[in-house]
Amino acid sequence: MSDEIKDTVFIGKKPLMTYVTTAIIQLAIMPKILIKARGMSIGTAVDVVQIVLRKTSPAFMVENIEINSESLVSTDGRNRDVSTIEITLKRTTG
Amino acid sequence: MSDEIKDTVFIGKKPLMTYVTTAIIQLAIMPKILIKARGMSIGTAVDVVQIVLRKTSPAFMVENIEINSESLVSTDGRNRDVSTIEITLKRTTG
Repeated sequence: MSDEIKDTVFIGKKPLMTYVTTAIIQLAIMPKILIKARGMSIGTAVDVVQIVLRKTSPAFMVENIEINSESLVSTDGRNRDVSTIEITLKRTTG
Repeated sequence: MSDEIKDTVFIGKKPLMTYVTTAIIQLAIMPKILIKARGMSIGTAVDVVQIVLRKTSPAFMVENIEINSESLVSTDGRNRDVSTIEITLKRTTG
């Protein structure tokens, strides 16, 4: 992770619009933010980004998207790989 | 879409490993392939890519990821926006 000023919104099981609102508030303060999700929440993260972009158009854009895996220890004590996504949003101008 | 030689794997409701196998076979023939998914299948697309990369490491890499929305007409006749993802995989060398 770089030292740039940015905040991270972790996507979980709350209602979609909760994350949309959080992301838009963060974008009003920060020059860029990171939307992170893993596993089943990855689709929701993409939904959040698309709604944020549509609601604020053309103020913000996707700067970068990264996908990866994390190794988690599941309840039965075994390692399980889970996919992750990180989407960076930034202000279109400046 | 560009005119480069590439094939597309659409991620749907089949078992995960079906898509992994299809993608690896395509990558053996094509210099690059596109993994596409929308809505609930977006997380599966990321899983497929992560497994393909792990199984074939270090032969292939993610070249590009794009997210977008498509407007679909749902069964009640209204338009519904659905998120999409397109992940381009390419050979690491050449």
